[in-house]
Amino acid sequence: MLITFRYAIIDIKTSRLKIQELSSWNSSDGTKIKKINDKRVKAAFVSLTRNVDLVGIRKTIRQIEDRFNRNYNYPYIFLNDKPFTDEFKKGVQVMTKANVTFGLVEGEAWSYPSYIDKQKAAETRKKAKYRYGKSESYRFMCRFQSGYFYRHPLLDGLEYYWRIEPDVEYFCDMDYDPFKYMKENKLVYGWNMAPMEFMATIPTLWDSVLKFMDKYPQHIEPENFIKYVSGNGKKYNGCHFWSNFEIAELSFYRSKKYEDFFNFLDREGGFFYERWGDAPVHTIAAAMFLKKEQVHYFGDVGYYHPKMGFCPANSDKIGECICDHRSKFQINKQCVRRWKLIS
Amino acid sequence: MLITFRYAIIDIKTSRLKIQELSSWNSSDGTKIKKINDKRVKAAFVSLTRNVDLVGIRKTIRQIEDRFNRNYNYPYIFLNDKPFTDEFKKGVQVMTKANVTFGLVEGEAWSYPSYIDKQKAAETRKKAKYRYGKSESYRFMCRFQSGYFYRHPLLDGLEYYWRIEPDVEYFCDMDYDPFKYMKENKLVYGWNMAPMEFMATIPTLWDSVLKFMDKYPQHIEPENFIKYVSGNGKKYNGCHFWSNFEIAELSFYRSKKYEDFFNFLDREGGFFYERWGDAPVHTIAAAMFLKKEQVHYFGDVGYYHPKMGFCPANSDKIGECICDHRSKFQINKQCVRRWKLIS
Repeated sequence: MLITFRYAIIDIKTSRLKIQELSSWNSSDGTKIKKINDKRVKAAFVSLTRNVDLVGIRKTIRQIEDRFNRNYNYPYIFLNDKPFTDEFKKGVQVMTKANVTFGLVEGEAWSYPSYIDKQKAAETRKKAKYRYGKSESYRFMCRFQSGYFYRHPLLDGLEYYWRIEPDVEYFCDMDYDPFKYMKENKLVYGWNMAPMEFMATIPTLWDSVLKFMDKYPQHIEPENFIKYVSGNGKKYNGCHFWSNFEIAELSFYRSKKYEDFFNFLDREGGFFYERWGDAPVHTIAAAMFLKKEQVHYFGDVGYYHPKMGFCPANSDKIGECICDHRSKFQINKQCVRRWKLIS
Repeated sequence: MLITFRYAIIDIKTSRLKIQELSSWNSSDGTKIKKINDKRVKAAFVSLTRNVDLVGIRKTIRQIEDRFNRNYNYPYIFLNDKPFTDEFKKGVQVMTKANVTFGLVEGEAWSYPSYIDKQKAAETRKKAKYRYGKSESYRFMCRFQSGYFYRHPLLDGLEYYWRIEPDVEYFCDMDYDPFKYMKENKLVYGWNMAPMEFMATIPTLWDSVLKFMDKYPQHIEPENFIKYVSGNGKKYNGCHFWSNFEIAELSFYRSKKYEDFFNFLDREGGFFYERWGDAPVHTIAAAMFLKKEQVHYFGDVGYYHPKMGFCPANSDKIGECICDHRSKFQINKQCVRRWKLIS
């Protein structure tokens, strides 16, 4: 594949010919050159997107490409519970020269398990007063993102994934490859924002977690960081890695531990009788099954998701950011501080 | 200059060595390669900016670079009536590998002419109820942009300029060089939005224009398009090319005609006794001194300036846009329609 390109690069000093897909040349003194297809990780951007999100996802892709991926060409995978329209597919593909695939989500991945009482679920929705409380599809989405996305055939063979969403902003040039960084540092889970969950959406989640831990003590990592989500073990404090940005090793989700956890929660019914989000589910799973050192806070990835975001102060690892790090949208301080404090 | 770079490009098919500053490689099949420093026009981006605009101008530069200039490296010139801080200079320079220069605006370019009654000007400001009506510096700015920017020594030797402002958005990939397009098509003035002026800011401007035309009939282009700004010649209709985006041949502003026009208006006092904007001044000058065919509507440059903007429908000339062309911020339809209708 590397020699399918028409141009090659010669280093004048060494006279060595390097044949590669060259994507950008970043500094005027010619000393820095980005290589792609060069020891890339088996990884992809993955997004669950609806056809109506076309304009928003194009914005996101443009930022991902401009800030990072035009130097790497990691592929994109788009999933949808409805078939993507030709307009969507074309509109997305033209934004990148990377490979793009489109997949359908269907069957058990987007429906009620047989043991769920649909009547009871409908009543829950009728009474719910929190955000997306009345939405059935939002619940299917949360359940899919909790227990199914990593099983989609389009993700087969991938080691890492980076979740992207429509209408987000990436403020900073990323002068390194986060996938590679994760792999080289044996990191399993990466996040960049940690707000508090609306407890009305998960009244019984923690009880279910306690039951799970009781039933599967062998699954709990001895050096876990459960204290991050529950100081005394009795109550969930609501801190969760906001999963609309997430870079993770897929083997984490594909593990027996996680499978047992998801199946246990699914049986409990809270995805439908309450409105359990995939973010607290992922976070609590990470807290139970991983060591803190396997989890990475991407505090250098300036990011905005309507209407929360943060702008990093200068960092050696990150390139230029176009946000103001003194701006007021840094709202996730409490759970970020907690992360830094726990050992 | 071209061989100061460390890498060179070899075309594998022809074995020809091309040494050049390579900026980007746009397609994965390797057939398209952008060259820079290759028949570029003598042109620059020019911006009158304050130190407090640093975050905003960095956003603008990033968009200019991402969408266009990283393939061309046209230089940037920043002007300010106060010395730029080191923080500003560094913050701007790191956003581009193009040459950046910083200039001070001082003397007659940013002060009252001797014949202006400062007391009367202060009373005008006190009474003014329109936007920026109470601002003295806004008036200095409009006068500078009307009659001085093109005389700044940093612009010496330039043929074209492209005005940029903080916090604007460029939605579309620009797959061509607008400077070169202007030059090759003998275009003198380029615009992309045309709103209506707030008439309270220019109550006597048109009277002054009529007096000017009376005094200098020899300056008026026989094939002018004055009818664009005044249907019957008696009244200004308020249509003006919004000058925060402007690509123009500087010889237009450096001409004797324009000099006489600016000096005449300056004597009239409306920059201080009213709040004449540089946009209607530029527009009326173009209408008097140019043929319509010398003026180009950059309707393919998707653009947003708080809080106006437009998103082009698909065009062959322009690359992908991340805005929605059905969105509601297309507010300048009336004067754009008028432009298309006049012959």
